[in-house]
Amino acid sequence: MNKKRGKQTIVYATPPILAASAAIAGPMEGEGLLGGQFDRVLEDNLAGQDSWEKSESMMLEWTVRTAASRAGGTLQDIDCVLAGDLLNQLMSAHFAARGLGRPFLGLYGACSTMAESLLLGAVLIDGGYAAKVAAAVSSHHDAAERLYRFPTEQGVQRPPIAQWTVTGAGAVILAGEGNGPKITAATIGKIIDAGLKDPNAMGPAMTPAAADTLWQHLDDTGRTPDYYDIILTGDLGQVGKTLLLQLMQEKGVDIAANYEDCGLMIYREDQDPHAGASGCASSALVLCAHAFPLLVTGRLKRLLLIGTGSLHSPTSYQQKESIPAIAHAVAIET
Amino acid sequence: MNKKRGKQTIVYATPPILAASAAIAGPMEGEGLLGGQFDRVLEDNLAGQDSWEKSESMMLEWTVRTAASRAGGTLQDIDCVLAGDLLNQLMSAHFAARGLGRPFLGLYGACSTMAESLLLGAVLIDGGYAAKVAAAVSSHHDAAERLYRFPTEQGVQRPPIAQWTVTGAGAVILAGEGNGPKITAATIGKIIDAGLKDPNAMGPAMTPAAADTLWQHLDDTGRTPDYYDIILTGDLGQVGKTLLLQLMQEKGVDIAANYEDCGLMIYREDQDPHAGASGCASSALVLCAHAFPLLVTGRLKRLLLIGTGSLHSPTSYQQKESIPAIAHAVAIET
Repeated sequence: MNKKRGKQTIVYATPPILAASAAIAGPMEGEGLLGGQFDRVLEDNLAGQDSWEKSESMMLEWTVRTAASRAGGTLQDIDCVLAGDLLNQLMSAHFAARGLGRPFLGLYGACSTMAESLLLGAVLIDGGYAAKVAAAVSSHHDAAERLYRFPTEQGVQRPPIAQWTVTGAGAVILAGEGNGPKITAATIGKIIDAGLKDPNAMGPAMTPAAADTLWQHLDDTGRTPDYYDIILTGDLGQVGKTLLLQLMQEKGVDIAANYEDCGLMIYREDQDPHAGASGCASSALVLCAHAFPLLVTGRLKRLLLIGTGSLHSPTSYQQKESIPAIAHAVAIET
Repeated sequence: MNKKRGKQTIVYATPPILAASAAIAGPMEGEGLLGGQFDRVLEDNLAGQDSWEKSESMMLEWTVRTAASRAGGTLQDIDCVLAGDLLNQLMSAHFAARGLGRPFLGLYGACSTMAESLLLGAVLIDGGYAAKVAAAVSSHHDAAERLYRFPTEQGVQRPPIAQWTVTGAGAVILAGEGNGPKITAATIGKIIDAGLKDPNAMGPAMTPAAADTLWQHLDDTGRTPDYYDIILTGDLGQVGKTLLLQLMQEKGVDIAANYEDCGLMIYREDQDPHAGASGCASSALVLCAHAFPLLVTGRLKRLLLIGTGSLHSPTSYQQKESIPAIAHAVAIET
């Protein structure tokens, strides 16, 4: 046994297939760079629900239902839903899963949760424990803002280094059989704490974790960055992206040629998101709405998605703790 | 493939071994029914830390380190830590994992998290993705009280149906090789919402989920309740325990002969825990401090642990939502 295992990297013996995806976004995201690529754009952030949290939950449930139907089956064919979000007690995922009525595993990795759900979902498929699973996440700007920062009504001015939490949800159906891009490997990250304490500056706080996981992934697999058509981090933003290039350079790895951050692929600059997008839906929207079609049509052949999560809480911040961060990497190939 | 899979039940082809466990508890738990069985009892709930949250985190880290050392290796042999707790953004687990420095996957299933971490940890071992993993959870009465209910200083009177959140942490090391009790099967639960809305009455809210998962486990495996020496639910408490007996009776299944609830095994009645214990540590302390030694010495041969989780949040309660609940079952046999 353990032949599937590198130091921190799983190499799937029978790579699970990404059978379908679905993505839904808020109105601001709909007017952004990926506007035409979402399956559905909300008219407003409430979407007819009576709270932002319920709107987020509705989005998550909708993407799982839509992706499950696209994968050529019904919801009943989904053996397990693996999902999470940014809200306390995973409110969005739990109420979505209540509506879905399928076996459920709740995950919390902050904005790294899409990668965590993909890597664990792929384990369930590759290991023969499930035939079809859904990996899904959501985030909602207003719900996150009032939970992590200030009441939205307060209109607090945001510093330039802050990022804008994405309103949206994305789901992927993983299957053991069929055609499509495949998850070939995944690297489980360690928690890295660079000692930073400003919760507005999550990009720089997460970057050392992204660098650690990327370096480990390359070392475990013996690959060089050019193995991938594109290396995507989840939501490091403008400051984090620049810092990751530097950190990798210091480790002797140049990723400048094929590295992008999902946090810079959601909003147009004139939408003023400050340092970029953040939230579980940052990497989920780029994967589900943008990269998945490129992989299916062969325009993208090898993608490394590095989900990045800032694991602080308002309580840990109030208790003057620094910000622990994590990054998980998932290799998707056609 | 998929031969390892029942409808909702995984049957492990190479059952992972529970190589070691460790349990730490607060002072009130130390004076309770399992007092002599904990590895360590805190002198006070702060344990020298400067907040209850940090005390909880310290407990979680301590159990993983202690169990890893008992499993005959070092922390570096642990390929992955799967952990969670009740705090927002898993503050306890994340800060513990920061100290542990091992690859980490964060889980949230409220008080069902011990079962969730065991079942996913067993998947990683059985599937050959890891040689050794830690499954661990914690909860802390004071930290949970001020997060979910009222400031502890307020001294709010608790209704008789309320349960008392356990202060403690438990960790299990799962391994692919060695001797010890084994995880033979696991049933992944669905979210069940019985429409109850009183967050003080979590036992009754979780009981329909426990009944659903237990029934499904028996149906998937073709077993009857007497297959097990003992069936343990996580924290249904006095009211939930009585209700589960009734609900199973209505399904034509009599579990009276060998059913216990961990929530009634922690505190003495004269400690006045009202309807019993709750929290992630309820099932974790009973498993790690009490059942594990009985399994190792053969006094217990077949145990079904049904972790039960109430998935509401203070926000969902304020938004007048009912309480979604989940239960995951893990079969441990010698």
